[in-house]
Amino acid sequence: MRRTSFANWPCSVARTMDLLGDWWTPLVLREAFYGIRRFDEFQQGLGIARNTLSDRLRRLVDEGLLEKRAYQADPVRYDYLLTEKGRDFFGVIAAMTRWGDRWLADEAGPPITLHHDRCGQDTDAEVVCAACGEPLTAEDTDMRMGPGYPAKLAKRPDVVQRFAR
Amino acid sequence: MRRTSFANWPCSVARTMDLLGDWWTPLVLREAFYGIRRFDEFQQGLGIARNTLSDRLRRLVDEGLLEKRAYQADPVRYDYLLTEKGRDFFGVIAAMTRWGDRWLADEAGPPITLHHDRCGQDTDAEVVCAACGEPLTAEDTDMRMGPGYPAKLAKRPDVVQRFAR
Repeated sequence: MRRTSFANWPCSVARTMDLLGDWWTPLVLREAFYGIRRFDEFQQGLGIARNTLSDRLRRLVDEGLLEKRAYQADPVRYDYLLTEKGRDFFGVIAAMTRWGDRWLADEAGPPITLHHDRCGQDTDAEVVCAACGEPLTAEDTDMRMGPGYPAKLAKRPDVVQRFAR
Repeated sequence: MRRTSFANWPCSVARTMDLLGDWWTPLVLREAFYGIRRFDEFQQGLGIARNTLSDRLRRLVDEGLLEKRAYQADPVRYDYLLTEKGRDFFGVIAAMTRWGDRWLADEAGPPITLHHDRCGQDTDAEVVCAACGEPLTAEDTDMRMGPGYPAKLAKRPDVVQRFAR
């Protein structure tokens, strides 16, 4: 099934989604955040078909979120390690976890607890404004044309109207 | 194409993904955060096939992220409005935007600027610990079994090993 490509949309959400490709990819990253590094462990943890896993790992390596490192020479075997770009995706996973914990958990409560080693407390992710530190909500936030918005689109009536709301 | 269902996994990331279904769904939500409410405006903004859009809107209504409200009686026409559950997803979109701005923008810079009306500054989303307010990073955070982790899985050797890392 061919997907629409979102890679060239002037929207970081669309670009991020295009890179991820499908829902397995964030789950492969989730495994990496648990400390999983080897193909067989990813495979066991996710119950994913080997060819699907190969494909998603290759994509994450190509896009620079994981790097392959040989840990054995003969036969050669690889670890998959998070890069800085990959580690930085943790915020997205943490924000998604918080939303799912809040809205999708059953009466027993969230399946996983996040523990913040640095402060020693069980916690949740909170998404805040980098400038003032207050929670960032849809009501308080405007999306405006940024420096990278394509000039050829900026004057189209539907685009002008979108940003005028 | 049938997808694996992640809805019953003991993982809020997997459950959230299962609910979203595919990448169009977060983009429909993104439109709603721009203030889009009507079918034709969603359709124009996304360039999405009408049947695909109908399906994604129905899913978001069924899952309680949007609600339908008749704004015209004859013929009946509906607005799609964000519910509290839908508005709360803004944090996930904002975290994704931040990641995409940082890692996927070209030299011109991010396509969109977030402006925080409350503090009056252009800003970015930051994902922090709700307990101490410091940034939440993969290095500083442990995932532990939570109250809703299924008891029948908790003693399986691979699960024990996962949480022992």
